Amino acid sequence: MAARFDSTVYAQRLDRAAILARDAGIDAIIVGTGPDFRYLTGSDADTFERLTALVVPADGRARVVTARLELASLRDSAIGDLPVDVVDWVDGQDPYALATESLASDARLAVSDALPALHLIPLAARTPRVPELATTVLRELRMIKDDAEIEALRRAGAAIDRVHARMGEFLVPGRTEAEVAADIDAAILAEGHTRAEFIIVGSGPNGADPHHEHSDRVIGADDIVVIDIGGPVEPGYNSDSTRTYCFGPPRADIAAAYDVLERAQAAAVAVARPGVTAEAVDAAARTVIEDAGYGDQFIHRTGHGIGLSVHEEPYIVAGNDDVLREGMAFSIEPGIYVAGEWGARIEDIVVLTADGCEPLNTRPHGLVQL
Amino acid sequence: MAARFDSTVYAQRLDRAAILARDAGIDAIIVGTGPDFRYLTGSDADTFERLTALVVPADGRARVVTARLELASLRDSAIGDLPVDVVDWVDGQDPYALATESLASDARLAVSDALPALHLIPLAARTPRVPELATTVLRELRMIKDDAEIEALRRAGAAIDRVHARMGEFLVPGRTEAEVAADIDAAILAEGHTRAEFIIVGSGPNGADPHHEHSDRVIGADDIVVIDIGGPVEPGYNSDSTRTYCFGPPRADIAAAYDVLERAQAAAVAVARPGVTAEAVDAAARTVIEDAGYGDQFIHRTGHGIGLSVHEEPYIVAGNDDVLREGMAFSIEPGIYVAGEWGARIEDIVVLTADGCEPLNTRPHGLVQL
Repeated sequence: MAARFDSTVYAQRLDRAAILARDAGIDAIIVGTGPDFRYLTGSDADTFERLTALVVPADGRARVVTARLELASLRDSAIGDLPVDVVDWVDGQDPYALATESLASDARLAVSDALPALHLIPLAARTPRVPELATTVLRELRMIKDDAEIEALRRAGAAIDRVHARMGEFLVPGRTEAEVAADIDAAILAEGHTRAEFIIVGSGPNGADPHHEHSDRVIGADDIVVIDIGGPVEPGYNSDSTRTYCFGPPRADIAAAYDVLERAQAAAVAVARPGVTAEAVDAAARTVIEDAGYGDQFIHRTGHGIGLSVHEEPYIVAGNDDVLREGMAFSIEPGIYVAGEWGARIEDIVVLTADGCEPLNTRPHGLVQL
Repeated sequence: MAARFDSTVYAQRLDRAAILARDAGIDAIIVGTGPDFRYLTGSDADTFERLTALVVPADGRARVVTARLELASLRDSAIGDLPVDVVDWVDGQDPYALATESLASDARLAVSDALPALHLIPLAARTPRVPELATTVLRELRMIKDDAEIEALRRAGAAIDRVHARMGEFLVPGRTEAEVAADIDAAILAEGHTRAEFIIVGSGPNGADPHHEHSDRVIGADDIVVIDIGGPVEPGYNSDSTRTYCFGPPRADIAAAYDVLERAQAAAVAVARPGVTAEAVDAAARTVIEDAGYGDQFIHRTGHGIGLSVHEEPYIVAGNDDVLREGMAFSIEPGIYVAGEWGARIEDIVVLTADGCEPLNTRPHGLVQL
């Protein structure tokens, strides 16, 4: 069973969820298993075919509906300590009726992002209108990290930094990306993660695809290699850090572009503080890259929030005028990608302090020569 | 990138999906990433926040809608060889409009089980009624395995049998369940799986919880231990096999109960053939256990289908009167559970042949004394 915080943490979060639902005019939030469920209950239960859901009414007592077979998996969660009724069901019963039976027939419902169609559609059949997304309520909670969450994110950051520090053991010309990834996988576990959530080993032209994972390509001595790795530490908070590596002095054009990238990343970190918008942080990095003539080669947003999910609010992207607040944690990860040739990215997680930000990754930002 | 079958396999599956949709009066099926998407395209793309979806109209050309950033991840799929339009989008565009733009405004839509609320709700907002589940159409396809799928399931079965054959290396009194699980994890990979999908090490009282995973409990020399393990082999087909272990001659009452369990499992295998119902197979195992007085200790269904998902149709459960057909693959896994004391389970995957079934796991069925 997974670790969790003290039950009082979840009691407070449940209270806040009900208050925010009420403020939004929502009568109840239905949260299926996944990160929102873990955030509110401490349970990392992961069910698909049989409904397990937390129902948080704006007023009244919350309930967890779960298959009797899954009851034991909730035992180590905070649920037993919370003001929550547990209603179990067996095959043949209708769990959707149990989830909605205490709600008004015209209740306005919101559901968690991750709730699959398999469950949402039968729930929708019991309500007069299609439920809406609970994102707006739940993101308000999850987006602002408390001290215990920030401490967990710090541990995650230190753990992935230790993996990057060992990269010379793994990343050697003549090996395949997949071989390097297997060693990184073991190191991610050895350095304190629960598991590796993603491992990108993008060598040479593969580095120019930001979503490349790894392949059987043999890494060459002249390659630039993007290593973007992370995973959760207990109780479920993720690391995510990218460094770019080479095996000797880089070509002059690559060194020049990398210098721009390093300045862009630093510019975004310098801007990130409470009171500025998410898109202002994106713009800070993007302007440096555009002004140097690489604008067309920076083909993704500057960052994403991180916590129980690797990608969550706030998204650091053009068009997001949400104002950043203390306690938000997100990546700052500009990249430059020359299709078919090479790519480079620098990524740190930062958490916003009262008047600036604290980077949770501290490995050097330069192109790392192994 | 993941392995896949020849592109002609996916072309046939797409054709069949369109025909079955038409037969069901459905105008289009929208399939998000997940096992249904892999089944139809050969792609194991796994996106969450940005929509990637395959739209299969009952009549007309299919399309894949995906974020431009994810295009590369589809490169090794069969999509380039299929009669499918690929429509990419960038941040700021509305992917839901792209998914539905060629459909009639009153189209009857069905969506894949796994499509999350995050995408289903905005899709539903563009249609006059809530989409329905595509399960009924897609399960018709996925439930009947072709020769190549059966070959993959055979490889998966042989791979997990090799792990069970090595159990004496890992499962030793004095170790914790978690330590044993870590070794099993490595063996699952070493024996040819892509990853371990689940590892249950249920020792002593933990064996009585069918959904226990593993814990820091130290395994005792007198314990009965349930080991239920599996994971995918390329191209994505899963193994799933349970054996029960002990470290010396079992207590007489446990031996007697185990004997009943072994007969129950064999009874279900003997019944499983085309033409009988799913519930008849469940009843065959259950009757043996009930007649011996252990009915209250067999607290779950007898089995589940398996393929690209560990759990899929057909479910071998009371109330499921679906008639079994050649090419179906499912588990037969009765158990006896004495709460707080011990549990035992025997699980093989079988695939239905013309006149019976072929077990894909061949390790001995007795209580294994290590």
